[in-house]
Amino acid sequence: MSLLVIGTVAFDAIETPFGKTDKIIGGAATFIALSATNFLKKANIVSVVGGDFPKEAMQMMRNHNINLDGLEIRENEKTFFWSGKYHNDMNTRDTLATELNVLATFNPKIPESYQDCEFLMLGNLAPAIQKQVINNLHHRPKLIVMDTMNFWMDIAMEELKETLKLVDVLSINDEEARQLSGEYSLVRAAKKILTMGPKYLIIKKGEHGALLFDDKSVFFAPALPLEDVFDPTGAGDTFAGGFIGYLAATKDISFENMKRAIIHGSAMASFCVEKFGTERLVDLTENEVQKRINEFVNLVQFDIAVVNA
Amino acid sequence: MSLLVIGTVAFDAIETPFGKTDKIIGGAATFIALSATNFLKKANIVSVVGGDFPKEAMQMMRNHNINLDGLEIRENEKTFFWSGKYHNDMNTRDTLATELNVLATFNPKIPESYQDCEFLMLGNLAPAIQKQVINNLHHRPKLIVMDTMNFWMDIAMEELKETLKLVDVLSINDEEARQLSGEYSLVRAAKKILTMGPKYLIIKKGEHGALLFDDKSVFFAPALPLEDVFDPTGAGDTFAGGFIGYLAATKDISFENMKRAIIHGSAMASFCVEKFGTERLVDLTENEVQKRINEFVNLVQFDIAVVNA
Repeated sequence: MSLLVIGTVAFDAIETPFGKTDKIIGGAATFIALSATNFLKKANIVSVVGGDFPKEAMQMMRNHNINLDGLEIRENEKTFFWSGKYHNDMNTRDTLATELNVLATFNPKIPESYQDCEFLMLGNLAPAIQKQVINNLHHRPKLIVMDTMNFWMDIAMEELKETLKLVDVLSINDEEARQLSGEYSLVRAAKKILTMGPKYLIIKKGEHGALLFDDKSVFFAPALPLEDVFDPTGAGDTFAGGFIGYLAATKDISFENMKRAIIHGSAMASFCVEKFGTERLVDLTENEVQKRINEFVNLVQFDIAVVNA
Repeated sequence: MSLLVIGTVAFDAIETPFGKTDKIIGGAATFIALSATNFLKKANIVSVVGGDFPKEAMQMMRNHNINLDGLEIRENEKTFFWSGKYHNDMNTRDTLATELNVLATFNPKIPESYQDCEFLMLGNLAPAIQKQVINNLHHRPKLIVMDTMNFWMDIAMEELKETLKLVDVLSINDEEARQLSGEYSLVRAAKKILTMGPKYLIIKKGEHGALLFDDKSVFFAPALPLEDVFDPTGAGDTFAGGFIGYLAATKDISFENMKRAIIHGSAMASFCVEKFGTERLVDLTENEVQKRINEFVNLVQFDIAVVNA
């Protein structure tokens, strides 16, 4: 089924305890689409870049079955740029630079050929823009998944709450869930957020895994214990891409299948952090993905049967 | 099979954001034994208390199938006392008072009737005392599980390393694993610690679950997402008690069965934190335990088969 991804296509410059990069290819839509296309024949992107965005990067994306018909190129402007430095624990980072450039006036246009999309992934962007995308679609997709971040909670909480009402799945991290709900306990936070619009909530806990809530159930997926986390940039987007890519490929949006989708998303995220930026995602083989998913199965599998009590 | 538990039987006074207690019954051996006897017919304790330790508490322990033949009572001395205050996040606490009392000169004596024990749980105590217990047993138990803490790494690292060489399973938290190994990555930490003696390592991550390592495999068990953690005191001991109690009851020390044991330990720990001290453990029913274990199965169960890759 067709997947529409809206989000940034960008340059990142990253510094970690393991090294630093010059400007490399990044952006939420890039990570999401590169991850989703491991399970899906095609991912359709809506985004914007400047004339400085390399043709080779676009060709790389096309080679990974990413459709760029919805990628606006503004020849005389510059691509969105983010630069950050991770601390030793890899859980916290400082933003060194944010240059909005083309993103400052981004007005997403949905190509006619995208209008039949059944799965919509709203990558992290201003909530008002995310809402505009939903409104610009002729038919409501079968499933809308939304990512966002604390930044929008700080400066645009009301717009965020408006957009929230329109989506099916919200994917945020633990601190964002606490900020959005005003509750410290993630169980309480989930209960509150599930009254705000989404029917499903994913709370990402980084190296501590992810929780999936609906109004009745909770599912937990671990993160793979890794010897080293080389660069966490894009891990959350890669997770979301694996999640929606798997759902779109299997055409099943039941809670049971969302569990499988979260395991697939977690497996993809575990690759993402092994190298800088998109480096690890672009050279992944189907075989490696399958092996990694097996590792996840083995990591949590035990044979205790549910018995009546 | 018979279980021998060595550890403190103590008084605690606890303050959390939810309230505070006067002196209540605590101690590692108390939590371990109360937890283990949910799966096992009997737990044999070796510990020491003062004349101030209430007869009613001892009767409560006997009612929970805890054998106190190895509990030394020093009528003219006082019981070990610990007092602490938890911060709002419940992950950190300040020790307000530690009165060693009888523990200062504790010299554990193993009753002859305990000498046939096949499972030995070394609750948190000075490593030299833990070692002494092993040496005082006529036959090496089938399985020795050891708990310890950062305090002993700070002041008695060499003794700790000596005792480590004698045990099969070490159970510590993530910060302690980092301190013991000098490695930040838990995967690297586990590799190093598994060269120090134990064949199995459990790393407890509190609300983030627990990891079980041997030299080839890793298993992850989540913590149950709870609305509130009321009082974390004793949760690690309760976890250990469920772990070794389940192993002793099933008489199977394979890695596969240790996975099940960790789930049982996690389930027990999830009860412990619901009320102050041992309050929740003492009124638990078999039915509640089974229901909780079912919740754990549902929390992580998904149906992705391992396929060849």
